[in-house]
Amino acid sequence: MPKSGALDYRSAGVDLDAAERTMEGLKSLVASTRDEHTLSALGHFGGLYAVPGDVASPVLVSSTDSVGTKVMVAFQARRHDTVGQDLVNHCVDDILVQGARPLFFLDYVGCGAMEESVVTAVVGGVATACKENGCALLGGETAEMPEFYAKGEYDLAGFIVGVVERDRILDGSRVGVGDVLIGLGSTGLHTNGYTLARKIVFESMGLAIDDEFPESGRSVADVLLDVHRSYLPALSEALDAGRVRGLAHITGGGIPGNLPRTLGSELGAVIDLNTWEVPDVFRVLREAGGVERDEMLRVFNMGVGMIAVVAPEDVDSVMEGLSRGDCPAWVMGEVEAGKGVRWT
Amino acid sequence: MPKSGALDYRSAGVDLDAAERTMEGLKSLVASTRDEHTLSALGHFGGLYAVPGDVASPVLVSSTDSVGTKVMVAFQARRHDTVGQDLVNHCVDDILVQGARPLFFLDYVGCGAMEESVVTAVVGGVATACKENGCALLGGETAEMPEFYAKGEYDLAGFIVGVVERDRILDGSRVGVGDVLIGLGSTGLHTNGYTLARKIVFESMGLAIDDEFPESGRSVADVLLDVHRSYLPALSEALDAGRVRGLAHITGGGIPGNLPRTLGSELGAVIDLNTWEVPDVFRVLREAGGVERDEMLRVFNMGVGMIAVVAPEDVDSVMEGLSRGDCPAWVMGEVEAGKGVRWT
Repeated sequence: MPKSGALDYRSAGVDLDAAERTMEGLKSLVASTRDEHTLSALGHFGGLYAVPGDVASPVLVSSTDSVGTKVMVAFQARRHDTVGQDLVNHCVDDILVQGARPLFFLDYVGCGAMEESVVTAVVGGVATACKENGCALLGGETAEMPEFYAKGEYDLAGFIVGVVERDRILDGSRVGVGDVLIGLGSTGLHTNGYTLARKIVFESMGLAIDDEFPESGRSVADVLLDVHRSYLPALSEALDAGRVRGLAHITGGGIPGNLPRTLGSELGAVIDLNTWEVPDVFRVLREAGGVERDEMLRVFNMGVGMIAVVAPEDVDSVMEGLSRGDCPAWVMGEVEAGKGVRWT
Repeated sequence: MPKSGALDYRSAGVDLDAAERTMEGLKSLVASTRDEHTLSALGHFGGLYAVPGDVASPVLVSSTDSVGTKVMVAFQARRHDTVGQDLVNHCVDDILVQGARPLFFLDYVGCGAMEESVVTAVVGGVATACKENGCALLGGETAEMPEFYAKGEYDLAGFIVGVVERDRILDGSRVGVGDVLIGLGSTGLHTNGYTLARKIVFESMGLAIDDEFPESGRSVADVLLDVHRSYLPALSEALDAGRVRGLAHITGGGIPGNLPRTLGSELGAVIDLNTWEVPDVFRVLREAGGVERDEMLRVFNMGVGMIAVVAPEDVDSVMEGLSRGDCPAWVMGEVEAGKGVRWT
């Protein structure tokens, strides 16, 4: 029993027992993502993962990311089960562009007072998406920082490790003039442009989180929390067959900020903006915010979450494979000499 | 030129060009941590790391952590070059307890408006510690969230991947009754207990960040920002020689919360509290906060940052090896039958 007036960790705002209970509740969820390579249980200091033996010259591909201010939409909507999925799918896509398939994932949640239901929803979303992507949730950290994060708020970062055969790394070196760009549809804003989107929706348009988002028949919460798409299922077959020469994940910076990174230093692209219909959400944001077209293209994915670079002779077979899945795909342009992205 | 009244990303608080400039300034710093296994440059989507060929049956060990509210001391002190070192060393120690040596590290910085000098100092600290630990800084993410983080504030999470030979994993299975516990000195609070420590120092004691910390001859900032020690240099030799049966990194939960995790399910420990002098910083905090001894032992490391479990016949050689380094080490107790930690 602490002396009267004595300080302890709980009175300072940190409840180690509650943290342990939350961990306990997540164990079975996390266990469902494990496979034969996973050697450790939750609660160890570090997670253990045996390097798969079926890769001759394994190169690990690793990335870290957050979902940015999309978490603030989750706070407003009091819906915490989707941002974890966003985080995992975003990270899966980030390493997919180098040809890697995911092995394992770790999450970091920084929060104020830990609310068991919130943390469980967030990490539950992470575990769900890990399972969907065949990726072990190997560990994580929930840091309770009551004076730093506001009550009910949290930030969320993810770390992924995947593997690729050394001679299968996508590094732009196989991309050439005349290669075809295949656009793969996004499911909405994914995880980028939320600072601007929120300003337009909640300030310029004056909408509340539960209002209907114009021309959608859905709420603002529904539209803004659409889950970032993982392109692993859509692209696995083409990648396994060696028919993908490059991939660009369209995140912050949009197409002009991301496509050039996969084309190498001497090449550019020409993209026909008439080959797809920009989804309503972007049109509404552009009109309501009075945002210039080039700014829209730099901040948002505009309906294109991933671009695959494919040799002309492989386009038909890649498109046929893609047509069997549920991800929209279309030929949107081609690689040309000279740097930069041109629009037609 | 945006139309008058039109919204763009910069007016919404995010400056993509400034972010790019900060990245550019960090390139050489980060490059200094790379080695022959590092296949990617900064700016790729994911970092590439070839699995070392000198490990027969490689198991990856991965962990994520933050430095908790120690960042708030850094804000007050306007000193941002040490928390990155804390983060790396903490993570190195977390995987060391399973016998792993670090391969690579990624950092996540969530912040308000990105201040180039602050981000550079933080990531500079990360890179410095990576270099000291022979660990590549493979990538990172700096997320600018101006409405979420206050100006000048940031959270910091780290992610480490190391490797261990499968038959060298430290999992507690080699620990037996009568094994000796060797304590390794901490350099201060390391990264745990800051919520309570800050409450005591800034509220109960009423000190300011630049005041002298009692009985130290140093400022509050200096004492509270002492860098978390990496035990990799001290323990490498004993680990390579197979003379370590278990390791416990003393973090949140203190000795009673961390030592049992390395002892397996049937064993406990008896520790002689008279074998070391608890550093002044803990004594001052205890007295000023009126904190119970057991609470102190549960929240703080009390001068013991790592505990090594060693067979009785190996104690002399391990202690001799440790005496050549600069990390204090002493025999503090032993493993006994029955669960729990007893103090004598």
